[in-house]
Amino acid sequence: MRRIRVMHFGLGPIGAAVVRQIAARKGFRMVGGIDIDPRKAGRDLGEVAGLGARLRAPVWADAATALEAARPDVVVLCTHSSLRRAAPQIAAALAARVPVVATTEELAYAVPQNRTLARRIDTLARRAGVAVLGTGVNPGFVMDALPIVLTAPCEKVHALRVDRVQDARVRRLPFQQKIGAGLSRAEFRRRVRDGSVRHVGLAESIHMIGDALGWKIDRVVDRVRPRVARRRVASRYLSVAPGRVCGIVQDGFGYEAGQVRIRLHLEAYLGATETYDMVRIDGSPPLQVKVIGGTHGDIATAALVVNAIPRVLAAAPGYRTMRDLPLPSFFRAGG
Amino acid sequence: MRRIRVMHFGLGPIGAAVVRQIAARKGFRMVGGIDIDPRKAGRDLGEVAGLGARLRAPVWADAATALEAARPDVVVLCTHSSLRRAAPQIAAALAARVPVVATTEELAYAVPQNRTLARRIDTLARRAGVAVLGTGVNPGFVMDALPIVLTAPCEKVHALRVDRVQDARVRRLPFQQKIGAGLSRAEFRRRVRDGSVRHVGLAESIHMIGDALGWKIDRVVDRVRPRVARRRVASRYLSVAPGRVCGIVQDGFGYEAGQVRIRLHLEAYLGATETYDMVRIDGSPPLQVKVIGGTHGDIATAALVVNAIPRVLAAAPGYRTMRDLPLPSFFRAGG
Repeated sequence: MRRIRVMHFGLGPIGAAVVRQIAARKGFRMVGGIDIDPRKAGRDLGEVAGLGARLRAPVWADAATALEAARPDVVVLCTHSSLRRAAPQIAAALAARVPVVATTEELAYAVPQNRTLARRIDTLARRAGVAVLGTGVNPGFVMDALPIVLTAPCEKVHALRVDRVQDARVRRLPFQQKIGAGLSRAEFRRRVRDGSVRHVGLAESIHMIGDALGWKIDRVVDRVRPRVARRRVASRYLSVAPGRVCGIVQDGFGYEAGQVRIRLHLEAYLGATETYDMVRIDGSPPLQVKVIGGTHGDIATAALVVNAIPRVLAAAPGYRTMRDLPLPSFFRAGG
Repeated sequence: MRRIRVMHFGLGPIGAAVVRQIAARKGFRMVGGIDIDPRKAGRDLGEVAGLGARLRAPVWADAATALEAARPDVVVLCTHSSLRRAAPQIAAALAARVPVVATTEELAYAVPQNRTLARRIDTLARRAGVAVLGTGVNPGFVMDALPIVLTAPCEKVHALRVDRVQDARVRRLPFQQKIGAGLSRAEFRRRVRDGSVRHVGLAESIHMIGDALGWKIDRVVDRVRPRVARRRVASRYLSVAPGRVCGIVQDGFGYEAGQVRIRLHLEAYLGATETYDMVRIDGSPPLQVKVIGGTHGDIATAALVVNAIPRVLAAAPGYRTMRDLPLPSFFRAGG
């Protein structure tokens, strides 16, 4: 089987994790990277991704040059959470007629304010004759695709709730910073306001679930609060004194006609006593499904991206979501 | 939206459960039934299905006559577990160019000895320009589609195990009989040999998982044992004395090159202390997912069928499985 030629656009922690996963799997060939960081461009992809081995594939600063030179079968895009910021990069790949799998949280599903942009991407993708997918562990799986699948055995669904609770001590430092660990309460509030502390994706997951289940979600509330340490709590990287913030509690509510249909509850903080994901379906039959120990965020996001690649290559051209593609699964190349 | 016209082929407990679910849902119109039982043919579908209301839709004894008279958009087939026995009924629907959603366990996935037959159905379906799907709670969901989806966040999968443990006291009498409750050990063995006591579907689930994950399953072992009551145990329908059989324990093993990759473990007996489904993925990350309280068999099988109908109508012509269709979910008709 011909190996799938992959271009890695964005070589931060997740982009680098994708490189390392692909390096360990058959069926792929990494043909290069793209990163605006001047310290990365010009170096070898394996070196930039911390692979401990050279890949004989360069990192370019410019997308068009990279795509022209390396002729990939797919672009893995791990740059921004914001669809507005990722859109020009997606457009660059589509201009070269290359399909895209992105971790762009806002691409996981088009919320109403992003629909115009999503339609533009859909048009470009159809013209290019290739598919574009946004995926990842959350949004993309734990709080949307998985609960959606779990409604398949139901004759009725009244409401749906997902809890994702994580002890952030085992996660990487940027994650611990992203959830505000170590900040004062005032700093936390400021960071929530400027958007640098918050999980992006609850509204996307809510709309994906709503559309799957036939609910007309007319209002989404996304509320962020700090989790404050009662006693000192520490990770490898950070030590948080009592009274300071050790993480985040975030709730997304999806309403249909004044009624909460969907509640997504996220807790990620240093010192959570149990890490788990839980889906509860209020329906017939009722269902309560627990991922004991949770779904590991960093491995899972990179794995969902890699596992989606063959499906995106086979998909009908256009903007696709996890709802459209055949049953997701681990992918192992044959032979 | 135009309602989907449904023909119900087979009006035993599951077929009747599908009628009752569809009666409670929008977007469908039941146009008739087909059943070889002379006590059912000629009566009203609602009456035969125990709906407590007439549907003004007749039950026919003959499939071709029914399909010609009622012109359905889809046939729901709930007759036999055996693909060989269901195949002529599927062929009758395809001869009328009507897509099929079946609970036929052996249609959930084609094991090697059924591949010729499956290919024939595929050819007929393509010629008819419609799709055929086998689904249900098991096979079709709990022991195959669900564990397959749960591998999507994995970068490696070494082995997979599913446990389905059910207290059969809450299930209907035919289910309790199907698992051998009340038999002596000798009777149980005889019924296992003649095929009337056993769960059909472990081999189908094993091959579906194996193909999804890229394992070349070269051997399947399907082992049935009795569960023997240690003390008296009773349901609404049956009372089982100590020393007699209160249910079934069945294990399916899927081997690749001498190594067990897939283990499916089923326990269904009167008096199980906990009812649950558990998926364990030995991989990176490892995953352990528990359906607390289990997935209710009778509701779930009928719901999976009903929820699959719009996907089968939209699917590419041919023989399809749960692996091919877009993300399964509860389906609610708009409007």
